[in-house]
Amino acid sequence: MTRLLLVNPNMTCEMTDRLAAVARRAASAGTEIVPLTATRGFPYISSRAESLIAGTIALEMIAEHREGADAVVIAAYGDPGLRAARELFDIPVVGMAEAAMLTSCMLGETFGLVTFTPRMTPWYRDNVVEAGLTGRFVGMRTPPEAVGPVTLVAQTMRDMLLALARESALEDGADVVILGGAPLAGLAETFAEDCPAVLVDPVSAAVRQAETLAKLAPRGAHRGRFARPPGKPSEGLHPALARLIAEGAAA
Amino acid sequence: MTRLLLVNPNMTCEMTDRLAAVARRAASAGTEIVPLTATRGFPYISSRAESLIAGTIALEMIAEHREGADAVVIAAYGDPGLRAARELFDIPVVGMAEAAMLTSCMLGETFGLVTFTPRMTPWYRDNVVEAGLTGRFVGMRTPPEAVGPVTLVAQTMRDMLLALARESALEDGADVVILGGAPLAGLAETFAEDCPAVLVDPVSAAVRQAETLAKLAPRGAHRGRFARPPGKPSEGLHPALARLIAEGAAA
Amino acid sequence: MTRLLLVNPNMTCEMTDRLAAVARRAASAGTEIVPLTATRGFPYISSRAESLIAGTIALEMIAEHREGADAVVIAAYGDPGLRAARELFDIPVVGMAEAAMLTSCMLGETFGLVTFTPRMTPWYRDNVVEAGLTGRFVGMRTPPEAVGPVTLVAQTMRDMLLALARESALEDGADVVILGGAPLAGLAETFAEDCPAVLVDPVSAAVRQAETLAKLAPRGAHRGRFARPPGKPSEGLHPALARLIAEGAAA
Amino acid sequence: MTRLLLVNPNMTCEMTDRLAAVARRAASAGTEIVPLTATRGFPYISSRAESLIAGTIALEMIAEHREGADAVVIAAYGDPGLRAARELFDIPVVGMAEAAMLTSCMLGETFGLVTFTPRMTPWYRDNVVEAGLTGRFVGMRTPPEAVGPVTLVAQTMRDMLLALARESALEDGADVVILGGAPLAGLAETFAEDCPAVLVDPVSAAVRQAETLAKLAPRGAHRGRFARPPGKPSEGLHPALARLIAEGAAA
Amino acid sequence: MTRLLLVNPNMTCEMTDRLAAVARRAASAGTEIVPLTATRGFPYISSRAESLIAGTIALEMIAEHREGADAVVIAAYGDPGLRAARELFDIPVVGMAEAAMLTSCMLGETFGLVTFTPRMTPWYRDNVVEAGLTGRFVGMRTPPEAVGPVTLVAQTMRDMLLALARESALEDGADVVILGGAPLAGLAETFAEDCPAVLVDPVSAAVRQAETLAKLAPRGAHRGRFARPPGKPSEGLHPALARLIAEGAAA
Amino acid sequence: MTRLLLVNPNMTCEMTDRLAAVARRAASAGTEIVPLTATRGFPYISSRAESLIAGTIALEMIAEHREGADAVVIAAYGDPGLRAARELFDIPVVGMAEAAMLTSCMLGETFGLVTFTPRMTPWYRDNVVEAGLTGRFVGMRTPPEAVGPVTLVAQTMRDMLLALARESALEDGADVVILGGAPLAGLAETFAEDCPAVLVDPVSAAVRQAETLAKLAPRGAHRGRFARPPGKPSEGLHPALARLIAEGAAA
Repeated sequence: MTRLLLVNPNMTCEMTDRLAAVARRAASAGTEIVPLTATRGFPYISSRAESLIAGTIALEMIAEHREGADAVVIAAYGDPGLRAARELFDIPVVGMAEAAMLTSCMLGETFGLVTFTPRMTPWYRDNVVEAGLTGRFVGMRTPPEAVGPVTLVAQTMRDMLLALARESALEDGADVVILGGAPLAGLAETFAEDCPAVLVDPVSAAVRQAETLAKLAPRGAHRGRFARPPGKPSEGLHPALARLIAEGAAA
Repeated sequence: MTRLLLVNPNMTCEMTDRLAAVARRAASAGTEIVPLTATRGFPYISSRAESLIAGTIALEMIAEHREGADAVVIAAYGDPGLRAARELFDIPVVGMAEAAMLTSCMLGETFGLVTFTPRMTPWYRDNVVEAGLTGRFVGMRTPPEAVGPVTLVAQTMRDMLLALARESALEDGADVVILGGAPLAGLAETFAEDCPAVLVDPVSAAVRQAETLAKLAPRGAHRGRFARPPGKPSEGLHPALARLIAEGAAA
Repeated sequence: MTRLLLVNPNMTCEMTDRLAAVARRAASAGTEIVPLTATRGFPYISSRAESLIAGTIALEMIAEHREGADAVVIAAYGDPGLRAARELFDIPVVGMAEAAMLTSCMLGETFGLVTFTPRMTPWYRDNVVEAGLTGRFVGMRTPPEAVGPVTLVAQTMRDMLLALARESALEDGADVVILGGAPLAGLAETFAEDCPAVLVDPVSAAVRQAETLAKLAPRGAHRGRFARPPGKPSEGLHPALARLIAEGAAA
Repeated sequence: MTRLLLVNPNMTCEMTDRLAAVARRAASAGTEIVPLTATRGFPYISSRAESLIAGTIALEMIAEHREGADAVVIAAYGDPGLRAARELFDIPVVGMAEAAMLTSCMLGETFGLVTFTPRMTPWYRDNVVEAGLTGRFVGMRTPPEAVGPVTLVAQTMRDMLLALARESALEDGADVVILGGAPLAGLAETFAEDCPAVLVDPVSAAVRQAETLAKLAPRGAHRGRFARPPGKPSEGLHPALARLIAEGAAA
Repeated sequence: MTRLLLVNPNMTCEMTDRLAAVARRAASAGTEIVPLTATRGFPYISSRAESLIAGTIALEMIAEHREGADAVVIAAYGDPGLRAARELFDIPVVGMAEAAMLTSCMLGETFGLVTFTPRMTPWYRDNVVEAGLTGRFVGMRTPPEAVGPVTLVAQTMRDMLLALARESALEDGADVVILGGAPLAGLAETFAEDCPAVLVDPVSAAVRQAETLAKLAPRGAHRGRFARPPGKPSEGLHPALARLIAEGAAA
Repeated sequence: MTRLLLVNPNMTCEMTDRLAAVARRAASAGTEIVPLTATRGFPYISSRAESLIAGTIALEMIAEHREGADAVVIAAYGDPGLRAARELFDIPVVGMAEAAMLTSCMLGETFGLVTFTPRMTPWYRDNVVEAGLTGRFVGMRTPPEAVGPVTLVAQTMRDMLLALARESALEDGADVVILGGAPLAGLAETFAEDCPAVLVDPVSAAVRQAETLAKLAPRGAHRGRFARPPGKPSEGLHPALARLIAEGAAA
């Protein structure tokens, strides 16, 4: 039995539910998905400032719930707090953006990214640079602006998103198109017939990669650049996070 | 039930056996490993010319045995024939080198490579360039030359290989060290205690990635740069391969 | 009169004092330096997880004190919260690492970095990648570990740091050496005679660059990737930060 | 007298004839062109899988005919088997794509590529990456699909190819345009008046570069990454190739 | 008092006047701008050959007037002679292109360039490559050709230049747009309201950066790659330049 | 009959003689080598400032002697004036550094550079960056300083240079080693037996490449970035150069 925390650093429960449903479809038999929704922060993160703040919130959530978990999926495309979490926790931590990009690299030579609002562009671009994958990235396509409530965009904007995925393939040359953004979870499979690219669903990719790491490298990233820092006092931090940081490498 | 072809394009059965044993340990419940050994070519590939020739042999082996398979692992580090196989077959194809490198990217920021002979250096370097991962690669470490029969190097050269893995971590700055080369299959886990880097075993990584693709993208890479070419006549090719190529995209 | 906030996201007042003294020496006549010390967080940040958390703290400090300021210097080498601050505030925001690197580019073709503990290596490396300056960077040199209290390293470790700066020049080929880390503020000028590289002091560079932006671009980065996001509700955030985020682009 | 093997790894003799005619016009006095056509494989290679297979066929052809040759031109744009041939043979081996690109670098800062079918795009792109010349490459232009028999495209598609070469110059910014693909051999010179870029003919470039290497470096690439591998037994290979590989560095 | 030489390597005095006026507006209190106009060379440089020749002329001008100067601004976008001047002189030397690009890096993640004639394109592109900033550059926009006398283009071509700056932001994704070319000095501030990018004026940026270097690094670049070469005899050079070169490092 | 100008922008006739002798050995039958020595400038260029000045001198020499020439070799490693000469003249212009590097790319995957003084390092490095070949370059090796008169270094420093070439191969991983600097002309062939890399002699490579361009592209680089600029008046330039520049594209 593998226990995966599905950490949504946004406060919107419908979004967590959607992510959890898709995650369960992708998971192997014997994997338990434990969904968590942020209790502070934002309804839905959509800027780099919000992502910075949500990164700390993700750390707090993992610190509070890590007991018994085998791996963590940070369930917001853009991977808030991913590197920091790898530094602090002794189990594998996977991000939806990173997992989607690395999985794409076995399904084509190039990948493109489609999301539902241009606000995400600079943030999601950061992930490509951090992963060192700019050479395989053909760019992002978004509509001019999001339409309607964020939890419904997979329905309300479906046709436009499909058109953008097609443009990513036909005009930008994407062999693979990633549908980024938690509200689009599960949409990829419904596009498969109509889009001349392989479609990748980030939360599905993240769940499978988390299972793989839990099997092959149960301590996750923990060496070199991700060595656990020594214990350190702090003030004004969430208690579970403060406690973890105080413990340091001795933990 | 997921059926994975483990295609060893070398002619040495002991090596296939070793790879299959490690592959089975890494596989999920419900995955069947079908090991295949080349019946023409070389005892053990160790140059780029040999890798080119073995690439065609790998295609022949897959063409002959693909019936009923859900995914393919090309079981020679260096991934002979990987891109060509993705172009020709309608199931996911995974390479040991590529899978090891992409998996490493979730276990550290940088990876190094250790193998048992300097002959592999130019060939294995090609994989890093082709994957677009030179920015995360800290280099390769090898002994001055291989010692003893290739099937025994995991034992005969163990201490030297461990020392090289340590140097990759401590001197080159590798967060993750990949032990490349089929004869080293399974060795990674025995180094874990003694090496200040996360160790990655390529065949284990490849098996898990093949399972993931079989679940998430059962046709594998098949769009854009990997679109199936149209049917074409040929002369003097292995019959199964000739037949497949003659069928083309209509298949 | 130009008013610069010198935002130290660490809680150690001696460090702020040291930074402020060096900043005042570098500043033009007519520039007022307003030093601020964090009231929550860590005594001294030294990991990427701590930097993530401190990034939010820096945002809180600026949100609380921005009234009347013409520009901001984030006074921790590593630039916690820099991109997020540029997104949220309508005045120029400068980071010590970024300012030091860009200034170095006019004083040589290559730059190296010296700091007092290897713990900073992955975090400080991130700045180089984010700035897109890896092609001009010759690497980092650090002692094996920090010696004594962090506020005293400029004295206790001086000889070793000078030796490292010399190695950066002579072995790594640095035309310019940056002395990174707030505890080393002001040390650069004392090395000038003994080191065959131009020395750059990050807080001095940051102050001058902040003055330049305040003159040439008083709204700072505020277009394209740094366009102010629309207002958004939040829960559990520092009140000044929450208020600023709620206001959004209308502010 | 310099004797150059012009190795066409395709089975179409008209194509070899065309290539040989253009090669003879470009050659110096005193150079003999020895054209060879594949006797197994494909009428015309147009995918990466076919290129992999044809690479081995090129090795077989050189192994069989190398006696008395001073240098080899692999006469299929895309350079199947180039690196492997450099590893195995003790004379210079030149590829049409590589020679065209390197020659272009002395005729402009950027080069573009025009060919007659989009099928070549991923394969020809590989050459640019392998040569490390992506920074000088402005991209490829092709018609939506090839029209008529491949041996006639230089006539049937001439106007469209000229239009594409003009677009490569005017829209993509190519200082030099390479007309890639053996069926276009000799077409470049007829475009010169009508296209605002320098035109490069790959087989002409390859012949001149082969002459240059035969003069300056009669053993060709044979050191470092191209050191001859030691002798090795094999099964099921073309006899001349098997013999050569069995001989190894002792040869 | 800081004394800055504003070295215009063109022979057009109106252009120097315009540059000096803008430079004075950007300068700090206490900075004296000393404008110099070339007395040989070209009315206005607009090719790389002319830039090469003008580079020597800039060296001559500095050699003749360096007495008492604290820093130099080479006042032609394209920075003729910049690296050579850094090698020869013992005070900071700043280029308009380099200073504009580095300043832009604190005002956005990407920058574009707009100028008034396509003739500048290859030359100005060189600066981006030399600075190692291609990863942040989104390209250049120019009209099809310059209209009217070069000293008047800021008026006669204003609308077209604004339209190009808008395209750089909206179509190319520039966060910052640099208006390159001495005849456009001072134009940036008049675009600020109408263009969705931060505008950067090169001579203003150069003046401020020169002040900063004069304060922080009064000898400028003078180590490593910019170490002063030893004295050397010459023939047929401008006397002041010949004298300087004859003196060498002993100076 | 092909007539090649061998333009030595240094004033030392012995060096021209040596270069001409090696050039004649490398040239094809039917190629005439016309050696020219600078009559102003420096005895021997060894810094970037000197190279800038010598670039103009090279333009003057070509302008004066171009009548009847089919191609030009700029016979100083470092290629002073190369790009400018391509812009101005209607025949192919080749540089020793560029020709050596491009030729090396067919003789190995990587190349190193050996020269006789560390003073050349920054200048020769520029050529690699300008050619876009940093990815294939393994670095430069030089002695700590030059010994004796520059015209004799091929004899006086021979053993040390051979040792450096060996280090370039064995420690830096160069498949090919270029012996850069005009005083080393002809030395490469004498190292061939003793160095485990292919050796490339720059003036030989340049002569052959110039012949190739004279045959394949008799106008040389003349499109796109190298389009001839329009005519322009000038003052104080060498008369032949002034006349050429005044003529512009009409010539």
